[in-house]
Amino acid sequence: MARRRPVLVVIGQSGQLLPEVERAAETLGRLAIDAGFRVATGGMDGAMAAVSRGARSSESWQEGDVVGVLPGRSHDDANEWVDVAIPTGFGMARNFVLVSMADVVVAVAGGSGTLSEMAAAWQLGRPLIALVSTGGWAKELGGRAIDSRQERVLTATTPEEAIFQAREIVGMI
Amino acid sequence: MARRRPVLVVIGQSGQLLPEVERAAETLGRLAIDAGFRVATGGMDGAMAAVSRGARSSESWQEGDVVGVLPGRSHDDANEWVDVAIPTGFGMARNFVLVSMADVVVAVAGGSGTLSEMAAAWQLGRPLIALVSTGGWAKELGGRAIDSRQERVLTATTPEEAIFQAREIVGMI
Amino acid sequence: MARRRPVLVVIGQSGQLLPEVERAAETLGRLAIDAGFRVATGGMDGAMAAVSRGARSSESWQEGDVVGVLPGRSHDDANEWVDVAIPTGFGMARNFVLVSMADVVVAVAGGSGTLSEMAAAWQLGRPLIALVSTGGWAKELGGRAIDSRQERVLTATTPEEAIFQAREIVGMI
Amino acid sequence: MARRRPVLVVIGQSGQLLPEVERAAETLGRLAIDAGFRVATGGMDGAMAAVSRGARSSESWQEGDVVGVLPGRSHDDANEWVDVAIPTGFGMARNFVLVSMADVVVAVAGGSGTLSEMAAAWQLGRPLIALVSTGGWAKELGGRAIDSRQERVLTATTPEEAIFQAREIVGMI
Repeated sequence: MARRRPVLVVIGQSGQLLPEVERAAETLGRLAIDAGFRVATGGMDGAMAAVSRGARSSESWQEGDVVGVLPGRSHDDANEWVDVAIPTGFGMARNFVLVSMADVVVAVAGGSGTLSEMAAAWQLGRPLIALVSTGGWAKELGGRAIDSRQERVLTATTPEEAIFQAREIVGMI
Repeated sequence: MARRRPVLVVIGQSGQLLPEVERAAETLGRLAIDAGFRVATGGMDGAMAAVSRGARSSESWQEGDVVGVLPGRSHDDANEWVDVAIPTGFGMARNFVLVSMADVVVAVAGGSGTLSEMAAAWQLGRPLIALVSTGGWAKELGGRAIDSRQERVLTATTPEEAIFQAREIVGMI
Repeated sequence: MARRRPVLVVIGQSGQLLPEVERAAETLGRLAIDAGFRVATGGMDGAMAAVSRGARSSESWQEGDVVGVLPGRSHDDANEWVDVAIPTGFGMARNFVLVSMADVVVAVAGGSGTLSEMAAAWQLGRPLIALVSTGGWAKELGGRAIDSRQERVLTATTPEEAIFQAREIVGMI
Repeated sequence: MARRRPVLVVIGQSGQLLPEVERAAETLGRLAIDAGFRVATGGMDGAMAAVSRGARSSESWQEGDVVGVLPGRSHDDANEWVDVAIPTGFGMARNFVLVSMADVVVAVAGGSGTLSEMAAAWQLGRPLIALVSTGGWAKELGGRAIDSRQERVLTATTPEEAIFQAREIVGMI
């Protein structure tokens, strides 16, 4: 049997995005699908929506490739580009479910929600790449250790670079 | 945009199954995919594995159609027919996530875990069909009300009948 | 150091109670505190409120003896007799937290929520006593096995009898 | 009826502590009980144990004053100074339960777990005081905003100062 398809989780800012952050998030989603990943986000607005929209725009996209792990209990909360909605009903604690799904996590910009997800990814030992050019907590934590563990949050400057690293991590290259 | 694909959640007994229950679970999974549903289970063994295996065997199956909402925190806990593994890390409380995903829930046989999921489906107001011919809690609760609400757990005698009802419920017929 | 104080969890119907069920729940709470248990419930109305109110009325009650494990995220959801409010934010999945706290679980009457909690108590292997005289799922499941495990849900006819059994189970007698 | 007793949640580093951090955590626990708070932590080792031990050493302590919200499913995981053990079974996601309990949160030192809890406290809008003299994420985030919200993480240099501020926040002064 073929091995399970690797999952790229993108965590990132909700709400209104700067135009260049939105473009980066969309490109990230598209390239992730191009590269053969399944893509999962928190399923709501902001970077989560931009990534999902980008994923849908890939020529390689097929229905089922875009997962949204939602805080609430209803499918209808998901943005319209989510194929597989997981309405957890766990509020912000759904972050831990989202991060647990990941073979690789990429952080885009980010406020307090993204910070909590980056910390969770670190705690659960998931490979974590910060797209530092998008600012926010991705920029602040990229390249440093989150605690005394002898590791660093990986950094990428462009979506292309992030996906290249992600492919290396899961052994696609 | 096309509306989101409806999700059929199958809840059912873990561990060793009677041969006729295993066959029913496999058929249920296959017919659900044939009919255009995404299929989700608890992702482990027993009826969860049989349904997932059946789903994979459908000619209409495409990668991404079979979801497993896992109690633990690792992808690797999923049975081998799961395409999208959701490792929640919430133990048995993942039952509520699983049931929240559903447009329709079908119960197959079932011990205490299935009982707790049937009660959860009822509490969350998800349409619930008991495949009564498989015994267990599906048989015990099929056709009756679980509390004072003026409804009953729906019943089906065969997988074909369960899928037919499920299609009616979500408006596929 | 003294061993940790045993916790009696009462699960039971929300909403309006029959007068005799309400009395039984109150008595159960009072006797549990008299006997030296800490008492925990789901913290809301119905049997949860009656048990908490009864617990407060015990002469042995001291602040901190009554715990409410809440579905929502605010202290203010707790009934007024709860000393220690645990606002989980996990909705119905808080049932698993509540049951995990228990040294002994007692079920009073009960609809679909109580049924899901009884199934959870059984799954987690917590000793489970059904106060069968209060009707509902306590009555239906009292004295029987919930699945193929070689055990039965214990039964009590009066609150006095339930507390006597609970004391035996935790080694207070 | 008296209003519910305010809850001070202390989040902080697990594992081995520096002697001065351990002393600060113990003092914080003791002063919190002296001041009339209930104290809650994650219930495990490190700062969680030091705070709980300190709380127990207060002359005002009474059984029930020290709560531990545990990641696992067993009472027995709690450190020995916890009176009320809440075994959630939710792993790291128990952080959200812990923080939801708080009227005020105080952060002591801290690695990735504490960082995720500080972010969670901010997201849930709980007043958050960083004991900056203990280093770690408490020091890094003290005095700054975690995202674009027009607020800052409060700072205290000593346990005395932290408790003074906490009392002001809940209206005890």
